[in-house]
Amino acid sequence: MRHIAILGSTGSIGRSTLSVVESYPERFQVVALAAGRNVDEAFEQARRWKPRVISMASESDAEPLRKRLKTAGVTGSEFLYGAKGTVRVATHPDVDFVVSAIVGVAGLEATYEAVRAGKTVGLANKECLVAAGGLITAEAKRQGKPLLPIDSEHNAVHQCLRGGRMEEVERIWLTASGGPFLNTPKSQFASITIEQALNHPTWKMGRRITIDSATLMNKGFEVIEACRLFGVAPDRVQVMVHPQSTIHSMVEFVDGSILAQFSVTDMRLPILYALTFPERVSSNMRFPVMDLRTLDFRPPDLEKFHCLRLAYEAAEAGGGKTVALNAADEVAVAAFLEGSIGFADIPQVIERVVAQTEVGKLESIQQVLEADAEARQRARRQVEGSSRSAVAVPAVAAARWQGE
Amino acid sequence: MRHIAILGSTGSIGRSTLSVVESYPERFQVVALAAGRNVDEAFEQARRWKPRVISMASESDAEPLRKRLKTAGVTGSEFLYGAKGTVRVATHPDVDFVVSAIVGVAGLEATYEAVRAGKTVGLANKECLVAAGGLITAEAKRQGKPLLPIDSEHNAVHQCLRGGRMEEVERIWLTASGGPFLNTPKSQFASITIEQALNHPTWKMGRRITIDSATLMNKGFEVIEACRLFGVAPDRVQVMVHPQSTIHSMVEFVDGSILAQFSVTDMRLPILYALTFPERVSSNMRFPVMDLRTLDFRPPDLEKFHCLRLAYEAAEAGGGKTVALNAADEVAVAAFLEGSIGFADIPQVIERVVAQTEVGKLESIQQVLEADAEARQRARRQVEGSSRSAVAVPAVAAARWQGE
Repeated sequence: MRHIAILGSTGSIGRSTLSVVESYPERFQVVALAAGRNVDEAFEQARRWKPRVISMASESDAEPLRKRLKTAGVTGSEFLYGAKGTVRVATHPDVDFVVSAIVGVAGLEATYEAVRAGKTVGLANKECLVAAGGLITAEAKRQGKPLLPIDSEHNAVHQCLRGGRMEEVERIWLTASGGPFLNTPKSQFASITIEQALNHPTWKMGRRITIDSATLMNKGFEVIEACRLFGVAPDRVQVMVHPQSTIHSMVEFVDGSILAQFSVTDMRLPILYALTFPERVSSNMRFPVMDLRTLDFRPPDLEKFHCLRLAYEAAEAGGGKTVALNAADEVAVAAFLEGSIGFADIPQVIERVVAQTEVGKLESIQQVLEADAEARQRARRQVEGSSRSAVAVPAVAAARWQGE
Repeated sequence: MRHIAILGSTGSIGRSTLSVVESYPERFQVVALAAGRNVDEAFEQARRWKPRVISMASESDAEPLRKRLKTAGVTGSEFLYGAKGTVRVATHPDVDFVVSAIVGVAGLEATYEAVRAGKTVGLANKECLVAAGGLITAEAKRQGKPLLPIDSEHNAVHQCLRGGRMEEVERIWLTASGGPFLNTPKSQFASITIEQALNHPTWKMGRRITIDSATLMNKGFEVIEACRLFGVAPDRVQVMVHPQSTIHSMVEFVDGSILAQFSVTDMRLPILYALTFPERVSSNMRFPVMDLRTLDFRPPDLEKFHCLRLAYEAAEAGGGKTVALNAADEVAVAAFLEGSIGFADIPQVIERVVAQTEVGKLESIQQVLEADAEARQRARRQVEGSSRSAVAVPAVAAARWQGE
């Protein structure tokens, strides 16, 4: 029986996790939930799962929740709120597995504390690795506990890595759908509208991640995550555009063998994998192999998708640069979605902010959060200085990254 | 350091094995070689590798080899011949790894004795599993030694299986190029010429295996091998036509995840894998992932490729049926290549021979060899009774095999 805490229980990954838990009642027990401001959803979850602890964003969310549950006759839960409450959920002594699915830097501290408390962590929060990967992976190593990725690409890599030892890995290949502008000429990038950018061909996702998919920055973040999670240098992580997104990722071994993973596109699958690792348990999520038809692949165009190149550079430099990359991207994407800057300005803003940021050495979550706040400030200044008429992003040679 | 014996050293797999050994002199030492009638090649191999024992098909091959080596000043090898010599090579006390690559039932006894002597065996001989799979796998289990497949499909499966435990496997997917008649209508099968059938689109191979690839019987044998080697029922092994033959095979796990393996098409890769398992060692056999373009898949047509259906039925029945399947196929293919029967008669001959064969229980290699000889007799009688004007193979529903 695994005793589970979910950080971000009312979000998409949180709800998928509870759906997995629901299907395997003999395996999992929900001990603690951290939600945000969605009191209605938190109420339903608390009523259904009766967690020992439940934490909300603030007291003004926790208090009405407590009252509604009391009225409904649901008792026995402890109510907490804010960062302290989230940390308590993440470190509760009865918990052995923590699903880290709070979006943004808000999840950083609690995830780090979960690892410090010796919990096994399933990671769905991107910032944990992009901004604080060194700290978190070092602590997990010290604790001797695995960090299990809950996203299709890194989960696929994790599965493929079982085919050998880490020192036998030549390269990790992350697949990318290519986003809505895979076939759009770079010359048209400056005039891409918000509506076009939000129209992702494959998935319905949140607005920021949809834009990050359109710029391929999302894939850039995944490159950084892979480096941190699996302890490999950036030049050992490559991206392959695969529009069908059937193969979720691949691992190339030193002997020349390549293992690839695929499955239905359903987040419950990597969640189930992480929750039951190193076992695999039976599910009804079957990929119809007999219906396989055609899989296409092509290298990414790094001249067009400048964000991906920026991510490689930040991964190489490390430290404050990846914190700045993430923070600047969040600000730039928000500015694009507000109509303040153009699509082609997004990498421009990020590049300038990252250039202004020292690599430094971030030795605590507090330092990471400070670096993040500074980078946001810089990004906002950049956005103010930018306009829709900004010049196109300078073309860059892809040779360095593609070459061996 | 692995001390190696090769059964079939002058054949294609044998020569590839020596090429691998050549590349990793610090890892491998050649202790014993069993060749056939190719004295010239055996001479070069003995001169290069100075094995402690070398065995040839007969005394009239061994004796000239001994003399030529003596003249060349190469001494220190023991010369043997015949089945006894092959067994001695396979069981030599200084050997720990045996590559079983003698084609046909000739390799059966020596491979079985190698397993009985506690050697780790790399299997490239199909008959070992198709005709005597139960005996050989049971003995390997008793010895606690792995049987490592040296062919791209089963080697791929072996690699993918590392992603979970055997009891977590839902299904094994063997890929098939589909052969030269993938797109030929069944109505034209009766008039397929020897030249057409020998013209395989992807590989240059021996004549029998080329015809077996054209009828898909080769894939049928692989289904049987997979059942025996990995201990799974026939309905858990499925075939997927994949004309590019990039993905060598796949394993589907109970949770819904599928792992696939690919690599360059070079037999040295599975050989290297088997020789170094559970390690992986660096090679220069790199698949150019960046050049990946399109992979196509489709289910096999079992109405057209009757041989594949026969293989499934024999796999289900087991015992003498798979011995008969292999023996009858060898005779039928030889008859087709001599022009005695037509292409569409091949499955007819095999079906009748298998139908005439009792399942029985084969408890020794001797019994397997007797069953094999009987099936060949029956097949020859069938061939004599057949003619090029034989009626087309009856159409069969694919439903049973494809269904769940």
